[in-house]
Amino acid sequence: MEKERILSGMRPTGRLHIGNLQVLENWCRLQDDYDCFYFVADWHALTTAYDDTLNIKNNIREMIADWLAVGIDPAKSVVFVQSKILEHAELHLLFSMFVPLSWLERVPTYKDQVQQFKEQGKDIMTYGFLGYPLLQAADILIYRANAVPVGEDQLPHVEMCREVARRFNFIYRRVFPEPRAELARIPLLPGIDGRKMSKSYDNEIGLAADTEEIKRRVNAMITDPARIHKTDLGHPEVCVVHKYHEIYNLKQLAEIEEKCRAGKIGCVACKKELMVTLDALLAPIRERKQEILSRPGYIDEVLQEGIKTARHEAAKTMTLVREAISI
Amino acid sequence: MEKERILSGMRPTGRLHIGNLQVLENWCRLQDDYDCFYFVADWHALTTAYDDTLNIKNNIREMIADWLAVGIDPAKSVVFVQSKILEHAELHLLFSMFVPLSWLERVPTYKDQVQQFKEQGKDIMTYGFLGYPLLQAADILIYRANAVPVGEDQLPHVEMCREVARRFNFIYRRVFPEPRAELARIPLLPGIDGRKMSKSYDNEIGLAADTEEIKRRVNAMITDPARIHKTDLGHPEVCVVHKYHEIYNLKQLAEIEEKCRAGKIGCVACKKELMVTLDALLAPIRERKQEILSRPGYIDEVLQEGIKTARHEAAKTMTLVREAISI
Repeated sequence: MEKERILSGMRPTGRLHIGNLQVLENWCRLQDDYDCFYFVADWHALTTAYDDTLNIKNNIREMIADWLAVGIDPAKSVVFVQSKILEHAELHLLFSMFVPLSWLERVPTYKDQVQQFKEQGKDIMTYGFLGYPLLQAADILIYRANAVPVGEDQLPHVEMCREVARRFNFIYRRVFPEPRAELARIPLLPGIDGRKMSKSYDNEIGLAADTEEIKRRVNAMITDPARIHKTDLGHPEVCVVHKYHEIYNLKQLAEIEEKCRAGKIGCVACKKELMVTLDALLAPIRERKQEILSRPGYIDEVLQEGIKTARHEAAKTMTLVREAISI
Repeated sequence: MEKERILSGMRPTGRLHIGNLQVLENWCRLQDDYDCFYFVADWHALTTAYDDTLNIKNNIREMIADWLAVGIDPAKSVVFVQSKILEHAELHLLFSMFVPLSWLERVPTYKDQVQQFKEQGKDIMTYGFLGYPLLQAADILIYRANAVPVGEDQLPHVEMCREVARRFNFIYRRVFPEPRAELARIPLLPGIDGRKMSKSYDNEIGLAADTEEIKRRVNAMITDPARIHKTDLGHPEVCVVHKYHEIYNLKQLAEIEEKCRAGKIGCVACKKELMVTLDALLAPIRERKQEILSRPGYIDEVLQEGIKTARHEAAKTMTLVREAISI
């Protein structure tokens, strides 16, 4: 039996951080059971930053290197860049003809994000930003994906994608499966200051961070503010370091928590344990990334191959789409 | 010196009518002084009729046959079909990223047309219909056209196209000229019932109508309703037949008008004159159309050649665009 098809993508934000690791590990696991299409969503990057494009190409390379370092295998998965497959834009345009404006205006994240950017002094009320979930639907449906691994916040977008598929199939003829959301329960790793991890907050730990960076970042982590002396009783539930132990140091977790609450381990020692843990976790990734970046032309080769396959599959779908619309 | 470039297009509404003749004659004249790109806007047809697509392909053939019959010369002009040049969709998408929603919402025709269709029981408030002037801007700018022959009603669209070009050139770098509107003063030919000529009103005369159709249509034309008898004094200013004499029968115009006002020529005789005039006007067109349709594969050849050239020119622009955006 043919494998089901998975599609997922990321915007080219440059080198990834440790907060992306579990998402990528999930992608890696899916490779065994599905035909996976993983793409860099460079057009999507323009929806919120059309005037900040200088680094996109370099960011794509960095990101692909990270993907491969974590274990995305080009022999199993199709790895490609969105803007190289013009058919995404064509399908987006064809969808736009029958998708009511109101569907897009009602996407829950739309008004929130417009507001968020407004607070940063940025107006993103463009035609393209409104149409962003529709471009996403085209990205997914053009490969007739059966499932999309997403976090909970993305569920409305997948629902909209399903509606677009239904509407197309109803107006013309059945071309698209309705992709299901493959809900991935990825624990949210905070930045070193406790806020959301993000390069723009400068609170992230690189996915391929070296020992020095890990040390520096863990040292700067915010711990229980009520704890002045090592012997003060700790409150792990408010400590960023502890959040990391919870996710990446299960072996020592119970012991550390107990000692912290009892004032028997200081924050410095606790951070040392975390440094060792994170270094062991990231060392193989950064070594593989080094190795990947040292092979001249390798990333280009991977992308060329992936783009070829993606283009071929997109073209197959578009033939069906054009026949169905009779255009 | 290189010739300036002109771009214009029509939606594939099927066989054209005599009301389109002067527009096409204008296109023909432009062929001598400009590099002309003339395209069938089949994607645009979807903006208002995404659910009525069965005849699009046939309509394209009919329309191209009409163009060629009137004198569009594939040796001089690039004749092609929009949907074959995927780069139009790509450029539209890239433009969408920096074009404020408000630009589109404020296009004067937008709300009018939404209202008009609403009265016909049709909801066209789709994402694609809102973006229609932006797709038009992409159609024009992708060939870096210098001028666009338009009627007065299209001026706001050309103005918006110029704004899009300016904004792109300002944000990234100068890629696009700002195309000017080449205002063509085309007299408006009414349908046989005095309303706007339109296939949907069934009041049109085909561009390649045969003698029988011309006779039937002219006979059904509405004349001065106050004139019962041949000897009643006529009022040419309210007579549809007279509108046609004004445009296509300048030679006899003064004489006919005088006789009509004096009650010396009846409507039947006046219509006969018009039939003869129109038949003489349309005979060479319908003969050439017959000839064109009788050559197997000819229209496909013309389109293939035009599509090849258009694709090549579009690709050149998109290379500049992608470099400018650095994507």
